[in-house]
Amino acid sequence: MIPVVTAFAQSPDRGRGLARDMRVRWALEEVGQPYEVRLVSFREMKEPSHRALHPFGQIPTYEDGDLVLFETGAIVLHIAQRHPGLLPDDPDARARAVAFMFAALSTVEPPILDLATAKLLEHDKPWAEARLPLVEDRIRTRLGELSARLGGAEWLDGAFSAGDLLMVHVLLRLGASGLLDEYRPLAAYVARGQARPAYQRAFAAQLAVFTGQARPG
Amino acid sequence: MIPVVTAFAQSPDRGRGLARDMRVRWALEEVGQPYEVRLVSFREMKEPSHRALHPFGQIPTYEDGDLVLFETGAIVLHIAQRHPGLLPDDPDARARAVAFMFAALSTVEPPILDLATAKLLEHDKPWAEARLPLVEDRIRTRLGELSARLGGAEWLDGAFSAGDLLMVHVLLRLGASGLLDEYRPLAAYVARGQARPAYQRAFAAQLAVFTGQARPG
Repeated sequence: MIPVVTAFAQSPDRGRGLARDMRVRWALEEVGQPYEVRLVSFREMKEPSHRALHPFGQIPTYEDGDLVLFETGAIVLHIAQRHPGLLPDDPDARARAVAFMFAALSTVEPPILDLATAKLLEHDKPWAEARLPLVEDRIRTRLGELSARLGGAEWLDGAFSAGDLLMVHVLLRLGASGLLDEYRPLAAYVARGQARPAYQRAFAAQLAVFTGQARPG
Repeated sequence: MIPVVTAFAQSPDRGRGLARDMRVRWALEEVGQPYEVRLVSFREMKEPSHRALHPFGQIPTYEDGDLVLFETGAIVLHIAQRHPGLLPDDPDARARAVAFMFAALSTVEPPILDLATAKLLEHDKPWAEARLPLVEDRIRTRLGELSARLGGAEWLDGAFSAGDLLMVHVLLRLGASGLLDEYRPLAAYVARGQARPAYQRAFAAQLAVFTGQARPG
């Protein structure tokens, strides 16, 4: 049975690969597993049939036989636990890779999403300009700490893992803010992630949805 | 070897159990595992020796022999994978419980932390009063969705799991905001979590740090 991943029918980022289905696509490409994609509109995401798959009405979801999963962290972990390539074999190293998965989604991403909220949802508020530096400084705190931990290493803890996959994608969401460029080791780290063949294949697949060149699943 | 958990030496919430070490204490109590606690000051948390354990300079950390972990999600998952009581045996049900762990920390907690940030770090800003309703409404969106998913069930997906443990503790952070009381099923869900004997033991242990009745580890 080939798993089915949901993704935006209308790409809000014009195919730049920032939507969360990219994380699942990338993970599946890393472990060499085929998948199908079902596109859902913004309206469909909030309907009961989709909320039965995802209580918070978002993408991606992951359907594999009787299993239905939501939350990219849980989906990527599920894939990584079932196929070699995204988690070390050593139990302690595996637990540390999982720690970086949670760190990406629970510690590094929230301030980055705050910046997106400030720019997209509060850009017309009277406080928008004055508040932005506070939001950016909270991101800088995390980036400085992450950069210090990475140091001169290629990946966060030994070989490339699901922790790096999520962290790289979270950092990509800094996009045109320029913040990533203030931390050269992190910018190089993200570039290493983007250079992986599995990332490239996943990126091309999500871009094809936007350019209309996606083949039917 | 008894694992060592770090916690705040000076309890910022005066022993109300809202610090993240509570999640690890509760998980260890649920599976019946003893643990020791090492208290760290705010200054010590930012020093190199603690950052070697936790790159972001926070608590809790978890040390078990050679393994050092950070991120409460990863620590609770590690405990749940090694001891029965916090994850179902069925692989699909187990993956769904992990999805609710990530949902608690990645989807439900970020807007709740935004409220804490607004109240603690931005309370003296000129926009504080006008912005608060926006922050609260983002929380309401998530609470409404979570309440709809829970419905009349006792726990989020079958028996009590590590997903419920993290979700209940995240919701507790709504504290005196009154938002939880707007969603009766969720308020009852949180009360069920707090009524568990393992929660009570963990709560008493963290309170004893504040009241000065903690026994040396």
